[in-house]
Amino acid sequence: MPLMKSWVESANAPDTDFPLNNLPCGVFSVGEAEPRCGVAIGEMIVDVAGLEEDGVISLSEIPVFDLPFWNELMELGPEAWAAFRARMTQLLAEGAEEQAKVLPHLYRQADALMHLPFAVSEYTDFYAGKNHAYNVGCMFRGPENALPPNWLHLPIGYNGRASSVVVSGTDVRRPLGQLKPPQAELPYFGPCKRFDFELEMGAVVGTPSEGMVSVAEADDMIFGYVLLNDWSARDIQAWEYQPLGPFQAKATATTISPWVVMKAALEAFRVSTPEREKDLLPYLREPGPMLYDIELEVGLAPEGKAETVITRTNYREMYYSAAQQLAHHTTSGCPMNAGDLLGSGTISGATKESRGSLLELSWGGKEPVTLDTGESRSFLEDGDTLTLRGAAKGDGYRIGFGACSGKILPAPPNPYES
Amino acid sequence: MPLMKSWVESANAPDTDFPLNNLPCGVFSVGEAEPRCGVAIGEMIVDVAGLEEDGVISLSEIPVFDLPFWNELMELGPEAWAAFRARMTQLLAEGAEEQAKVLPHLYRQADALMHLPFAVSEYTDFYAGKNHAYNVGCMFRGPENALPPNWLHLPIGYNGRASSVVVSGTDVRRPLGQLKPPQAELPYFGPCKRFDFELEMGAVVGTPSEGMVSVAEADDMIFGYVLLNDWSARDIQAWEYQPLGPFQAKATATTISPWVVMKAALEAFRVSTPEREKDLLPYLREPGPMLYDIELEVGLAPEGKAETVITRTNYREMYYSAAQQLAHHTTSGCPMNAGDLLGSGTISGATKESRGSLLELSWGGKEPVTLDTGESRSFLEDGDTLTLRGAAKGDGYRIGFGACSGKILPAPPNPYES
Repeated sequence: MPLMKSWVESANAPDTDFPLNNLPCGVFSVGEAEPRCGVAIGEMIVDVAGLEEDGVISLSEIPVFDLPFWNELMELGPEAWAAFRARMTQLLAEGAEEQAKVLPHLYRQADALMHLPFAVSEYTDFYAGKNHAYNVGCMFRGPENALPPNWLHLPIGYNGRASSVVVSGTDVRRPLGQLKPPQAELPYFGPCKRFDFELEMGAVVGTPSEGMVSVAEADDMIFGYVLLNDWSARDIQAWEYQPLGPFQAKATATTISPWVVMKAALEAFRVSTPEREKDLLPYLREPGPMLYDIELEVGLAPEGKAETVITRTNYREMYYSAAQQLAHHTTSGCPMNAGDLLGSGTISGATKESRGSLLELSWGGKEPVTLDTGESRSFLEDGDTLTLRGAAKGDGYRIGFGACSGKILPAPPNPYES
Repeated sequence: MPLMKSWVESANAPDTDFPLNNLPCGVFSVGEAEPRCGVAIGEMIVDVAGLEEDGVISLSEIPVFDLPFWNELMELGPEAWAAFRARMTQLLAEGAEEQAKVLPHLYRQADALMHLPFAVSEYTDFYAGKNHAYNVGCMFRGPENALPPNWLHLPIGYNGRASSVVVSGTDVRRPLGQLKPPQAELPYFGPCKRFDFELEMGAVVGTPSEGMVSVAEADDMIFGYVLLNDWSARDIQAWEYQPLGPFQAKATATTISPWVVMKAALEAFRVSTPEREKDLLPYLREPGPMLYDIELEVGLAPEGKAETVITRTNYREMYYSAAQQLAHHTTSGCPMNAGDLLGSGTISGATKESRGSLLELSWGGKEPVTLDTGESRSFLEDGDTLTLRGAAKGDGYRIGFGACSGKILPAPPNPYES
C-alpha cells in the first residue's frame, strides 16, 4: 500500500510518523481545556470528541468519546474500529468534501500536552525476546542454563502494576528500595544504583474475554500497539525476585508512547515469528504472521547534552507474538478487559548494538557504553533522558508511535537514612 | 468492649457474625433489583444507598452510595469512615429514635444475593506466613534452604490478577493449563490435577497514596479486611513459575468474603506480629500492634455430603502485617488506589492441623487428608465446596466476615485434546 494523501499537508511528508495510513489514538489537551480523545495527522491532532459532538462521526447510539480515554471505542470491537478508521480516512483524505467540518477541530501537536491514551485496566509484562532472555540468563546463570527449561514452550509472563503506567514525557524518579550487594551480609534501604530501561512494545487489549481464547481470537481482540519502556531497578530486583518474581523493581514507572497505533495500520507489516526451536503445543500455534516489522531505536541524552542512539533493533526479533501471549494469558480462565496492556518483553537483537537494555549493552556494568559526548554509562544517571522511537516503514511513508520518553530525576529524600 | 445492643434482635445473638460492633460493608441485591451497598446487622442487611437517598445518612455533598461499590466511601478517608460508623451505630442501637427511618430499608440476608463489595483496582498477593513459606520451601528445596534468604528481611509479594477476584458463592472452574510432570520430557495441555486453596486474609486499601508511606501511614490507609481464598493450580505453577513467579496458576479465581469488616471493628483485637528473628530495617518496623486475633477455619464438603473442618488457625500467625506489606509496596514510588486488595499470604499455624492449604495438609499429596465421610483428599476434586470462616471473638460477641465459599466445577472441554 502506498502513501495515502491527506489535505493536511504535513501528513504527506515522507518523514512524518503520522500519515493518513496511520491515524493513531491519543488523548491531548491544549491550554486550560480538559483532555480529549484525538487522532494524529501529520503535525496536527483531530479532536474526535469534537467531531462526535458535532455529529460528524457517530459510532454508537451513546457517545464513545465523552471520556478522555479510548476504552469505550475499544469495547465496541473490531467492526466499530474499522468503521471509525473508514470514516476518519474519508474525512481526512485529499479532496475530502467535508474538510470544513473537520477544520474547527484541528490542533497543532506542538501546542498540545499528551495524556495516557487509555485507562490501563491491568498490566502484564512478558519475557518473550529470546536474545534478551539468553543474555540475562548468561549473566546470572551461565550460558548452559541461560534459558529456563520452560522458555521455548510458553511465553513467560508476570503481572505488573497498572497504577505505575505513565505517558511519555512524565519524569521518572529513581526509586528507593531494599538492596543487598552480593558481598554484604545484610540488606540496607537506599536509592537504586542500577536503574535501567527495557525497550518493549505493548499490545492493548480491546475486546474483553472470559474463558480461553485461541491465538487467532486473541489477535482479533488486540486494538493496537504502543512503544513501552519498562523501567527496571536491577539491584532491587536481584534481592527481591526469588521465588515469586519482580515486584518493587518494576513498580516505579512504565512509560508508554502517547499514541496507540491501531492494528489495522500495521497490517501491511505483518511478519512471522522466527522458526520454532521446539514444537509448540497446538494452543500456542499461530495461524498466520502475527509479529510486525517495526524498526526500533533508543536514544540517551545526558542532562543538557546531545542524544546518542545506543541501540537499534526490530519488533520482529520476538520469539512469541502478542497474540500468543494473550492466548496463553487466558488458558486458566483469566478474564481479560478493554485496556489491558501486555508488554512484549525486552526486544534485543542478536548483535551487541541491538540489545534492548543497559544491563545487556554494558553486560552487567562490565562494559560501559560510550556516548557521543564522551561520557559512558553502565546504568542510567540522574538527569538522563531516555527516548524510544519506532516505525514500520512502507513505500514512501512510515507508521510511527511518537517518542516514548522519560527523564530520570534524583531519588526522593530517604527518610530512613542512618 | 462488650456487645453493643441493637434493636435488630438477631444482632444480639452471641453466635451472629454481625453484631452492632461489626457493621461490615457489602453489596447485595434482592429479586430483580439492582445491586446496592448494604451493611450487615444480625440476620438483616441495611440498604445504605436507600438511607442516603432518603437523607438519613449524608457523608458528602455528592452521593457516596450511588454505585454498587464501597470505593467512594473508601476514597473519602478515615474521618468519613468514622462518621459513617458513628451514624450507623446511632441508627441501629437499642432504643434508637430514628428506627422508623431505617425499617423500610431492612432486608433479610436469606433473601439477598451478594456481589463483589468493591471494585478491585489491583490485587497483590504476599507470602508472609512463615510456617507456610517454610513448609513449601521444605517440600521444594529441603529444610536447609526452605526460607529464601530475603524472607526474614522483606514481605515477599507479587502482583496478581484483579479481574479474577470473585465474591463468595461463585463457582470456580478447574483450569486448563500447560503442565509438565517431573518425569515427562515434554509438557502437555490439559486440566490441572493439583488444584488447591490458600487460606488468607485480604486487606483493602481505602485512601490512595503516591510516593512512599510509613507503616503507620499504611495502617491508616487500610479501610478493612476480608477473608480470601487464593485458588492455586500447583502443577501449572511448578512448570511456569521460574524465573518470574506465578502467573496462570493464580489467575483462575480468588474468592473473597461478601463482607468487608472495617478496621475500626477490629481495633479491640489488635495483636503484635511475632518476635523478629532478624532485625527489620527501620522502614518496616511497626509502631504498635498491627495484626489481629482472628480465628480461622476451613471446611471441605464433597458433592452432596457433609463438611469436614480440615484446618483451624489464626491471622496472628503472620510474620508481616498488612501495614508492613503496604509500606513495602510503596517503597518504589508505586501509586496505591482505593480498592487495591492485598492478600496476606497463606496462614498456616505451627501444627499439622493448622496448615492453610492442601499442599501442606497432604504434604504434597504424600499424606492425604481423611474426611469425616471416609473419603480422602490430596487436592481438591470436582464437586468439592471449600469454605473459609473467620471471626474475632470478644466478650459475648464475635466479629465475623460471613462464609467465603466456592464450589469446584469440572474443567472446561479441552479444545486441544489429542
